[in-house]
Amino acid sequence: MTTVKLFYYPSNASMAPHIVLEEIGQPFELMLVDRTQGEHKSVEYLRLNPNGLIPVLVDGDLVLYETAAICLHLADTNPASGLAPELGTMERAQFYKWLMWLTNTLQTALIVYYYPERWVDPENSIGAQQIRAHAESKITTLLNQLEVQLHSSGGPWLLGQHYTVLDPYALMLCRWTRGFAKPAREWSLLGAYLQRVLARPAVQRAIKTERLGEPLV
Amino acid sequence: MTTVKLFYYPSNASMAPHIVLEEIGQPFELMLVDRTQGEHKSVEYLRLNPNGLIPVLVDGDLVLYETAAICLHLADTNPASGLAPELGTMERAQFYKWLMWLTNTLQTALIVYYYPERWVDPENSIGAQQIRAHAESKITTLLNQLEVQLHSSGGPWLLGQHYTVLDPYALMLCRWTRGFAKPAREWSLLGAYLQRVLARPAVQRAIKTERLGEPLV
Repeated sequence: MTTVKLFYYPSNASMAPHIVLEEIGQPFELMLVDRTQGEHKSVEYLRLNPNGLIPVLVDGDLVLYETAAICLHLADTNPASGLAPELGTMERAQFYKWLMWLTNTLQTALIVYYYPERWVDPENSIGAQQIRAHAESKITTLLNQLEVQLHSSGGPWLLGQHYTVLDPYALMLCRWTRGFAKPAREWSLLGAYLQRVLARPAVQRAIKTERLGEPLV
Repeated sequence: MTTVKLFYYPSNASMAPHIVLEEIGQPFELMLVDRTQGEHKSVEYLRLNPNGLIPVLVDGDLVLYETAAICLHLADTNPASGLAPELGTMERAQFYKWLMWLTNTLQTALIVYYYPERWVDPENSIGAQQIRAHAESKITTLLNQLEVQLHSSGGPWLLGQHYTVLDPYALMLCRWTRGFAKPAREWSLLGAYLQRVLARPAVQRAIKTERLGEPLV
């Protein structure tokens, strides 16, 4: 068996799969993609992911991008880790729903927030400022949906009793709101939940390896 | 066994799960959510999906939203339909990758294109116009990625030999580009591929039920 390789950069979208690999507990190798040197746009890296986005997982002959797909693949191929509900169950359906929502709603709104200038002409800084403000306002309503879900699921994890890849994924995205007027940590259930995720040994190990500083969320 | 219900509106994001249900061939019920009457924002509908988005699938006790999650759930619970590769395989991983990309990259860019005014202040119509233009330009590069994938997979379907829920999903999103300067149908491999998907009896039945007019893509 070859060792799985994760191409990563600290605090990027690679953080969720990195934690998932730590939770699984099998050997893996981290490959730093130095964004500060533009390595994610290098010919070599674009061969792995034509979008030039981090992360990429290499698992034997498999070269895989899309963070949520990597998390699903790791959970499916390591069933003993219990990081995804069983196929064909109602819990699996709800798990898919939240994973889709995290990747296509919360994460994309965060990317708009961080790169608003991509959506307007270069000289339109007022437009970019408005986009950023609208994104922050939208994300605030999305964080509230996580709060409501933690209330309905009863916790301690997003789906309820079952810790899944959704939890490191939610932690990673909530971390990206730490500069907001009302960051994720300031919601009552969500804040306590993020502390529970942070307290897991696998999460602590990933944070240490990525050398992430305070505030973590 | 109760009959599965799909809450839909013609040509909306419900189109992909509608086709998937036709492909599966088990009885199902379509429930029209009349957007023109604001039914997707009614108290009853918001109880099914707090985001007020179409579609919702009701399968016994399960109430499920997020289009890609519905497609995954239907494929998983109807394994005989063969609409998703087997769990834990390399093909399943690539299938996840493309489904994530469809939902979080192509579909979200299309939503920005159709609703650019959501991202700027109400009086900023120039900003909204710029956002729409940038979205169209981004989507054009994304359509080109589908063209490249059809080249690498060798067709006839997006993943290659295996028809999956990716195909109706891609058809639905490509259909939404039909008013573009260069719509999906004008790419060489992509255009021929869309005709192949359209020619499937299940797709034809869904189109007829939704009373979709020309051009279909």
